[in-house]
Amino acid sequence: MRVLWLYAHPDPRSLNGALRDEGIAVLREHGHEVVESDLYAMEWNPVVGHGDFQHDPGERLDVLTESQAALENGTLSEDIRAEQEKLLWSDTLVVQFPLWWFGPPAILKGWFDRLFIQGFAQGVLDPETGRAQRYGSGGLAGRRALVLTTVGANAATTGPRGIHGDINEVLFPLLHGTLWYPGMTVVPPLVVNGAVKLAEAEYKTAVGQLRQRLLTLEETEPIPYRSQNGGDYDEHLVLRPDRAPGEEGIHIHYAAGGIDERCERTGGDDEADR
Amino acid sequence: MRVLWLYAHPDPRSLNGALRDEGIAVLREHGHEVVESDLYAMEWNPVVGHGDFQHDPGERLDVLTESQAALENGTLSEDIRAEQEKLLWSDTLVVQFPLWWFGPPAILKGWFDRLFIQGFAQGVLDPETGRAQRYGSGGLAGRRALVLTTVGANAATTGPRGIHGDINEVLFPLLHGTLWYPGMTVVPPLVVNGAVKLAEAEYKTAVGQLRQRLLTLEETEPIPYRSQNGGDYDEHLVLRPDRAPGEEGIHIHYAAGGIDERCERTGGDDEADR
Repeated sequence: MRVLWLYAHPDPRSLNGALRDEGIAVLREHGHEVVESDLYAMEWNPVVGHGDFQHDPGERLDVLTESQAALENGTLSEDIRAEQEKLLWSDTLVVQFPLWWFGPPAILKGWFDRLFIQGFAQGVLDPETGRAQRYGSGGLAGRRALVLTTVGANAATTGPRGIHGDINEVLFPLLHGTLWYPGMTVVPPLVVNGAVKLAEAEYKTAVGQLRQRLLTLEETEPIPYRSQNGGDYDEHLVLRPDRAPGEEGIHIHYAAGGIDERCERTGGDDEADR
Repeated sequence: MRVLWLYAHPDPRSLNGALRDEGIAVLREHGHEVVESDLYAMEWNPVVGHGDFQHDPGERLDVLTESQAALENGTLSEDIRAEQEKLLWSDTLVVQFPLWWFGPPAILKGWFDRLFIQGFAQGVLDPETGRAQRYGSGGLAGRRALVLTTVGANAATTGPRGIHGDINEVLFPLLHGTLWYPGMTVVPPLVVNGAVKLAEAEYKTAVGQLRQRLLTLEETEPIPYRSQNGGDYDEHLVLRPDRAPGEEGIHIHYAAGGIDERCERTGGDDEADR
């Protein structure tokens, strides 16, 4: 595999830093190539702005239009281009972060905001139909993605009936809306619960699971999200009435498989959050 | 009302800028006080780091511990303190943003990451039970929140069976996990669809809806999320078996009410995204 390891934690001496080191080491031991984007170490700028597109701040900024023009003209800012090139070089993306307020830290959200522009990860048209490709096909099709996140809350509270909401559905904007949207194959996330005070034995379990997940990544069954072109959606991109009939909500976008199978949970029983 | 209007768009000459101006104007016309946090204009730093807590970068950063210590010692960075004070002054928070990759822009995510620290918006203990308060009670209880977001996709595709996932559930990490968590009363979001090319008539409709929502905000029925202390969850914070029996997923955290009633949609039929 050619892996881009995208990592967003402020301190390398953290649980996240240790898991990152273990993960990259095991990949390299097994002959995989790994390139890293350590967003804090790079002092990554997460804020979309005029400077991304060499755009005149005196003019009104239409992000969609300007980003696509800059992509086509080669005038995207250097930091965005460098990251896009790393992503295009890779066949596998690992996205690692501590879950903050039930989503990625701002520095990571802004990696997607700034890279995933019109013509690159959205608005990529099918040459025959002229229709925008997404959800299974699109600008990043053919690549795999694994999300690795640490969560302060325990496994029960982020479970199928836990108070914080099922972590698989809480992560839907990232897994489905950001990674699956441009066509990446998304495997179930690895969630390390109880991350505030992980006991040594729990840490070892988490490392073991991470190693195993990385070494079986190429064969891992993806999350069975429905494809835009798979026949499940009608011409308005609404789920056909005979699929999940009568049901509503984001869970209907799974073609099959129960919630229990979608995510492996590990870690301790600490009730703290963040 | 004392309203904090939190706004995250890179250009004031945008649809978002126009809606913001209309919204603030109508509030002031009706005698409400409005303070604004225009994150782009403020050049808000969204990245949690050592500097937030006057923390030695040579030492390992434990965000949870350091943030709470800085809060208690009055050593939080000045920009965070100023925003927290605006929030504490207000009784109502309006959160306005263009939906980027199915979540808030990084600059806005980082407002929550940096402000909503341990002891302020999480880890606020009940003095009698010693238990952390959240979901209906907590550090920001007694305040209301309205989310106003513009979405490129049309209303059907972000609807209950639309390909992007029901927008109410896509916004769960913000509405439930960020605003309801520290105890704010969250009303249904106002979602302006088709935002890439909104026709003049659709814009007028959106402005009309925004004015109406703002002027009825104090009486608006909140989203019926379940409370931590309301008896629906067991001692492990898992939903009791007789609530939404046999069901799983984030929709079970609504005490009542259908998906159709949870969100008002407006705007055009454009299929573009972002």
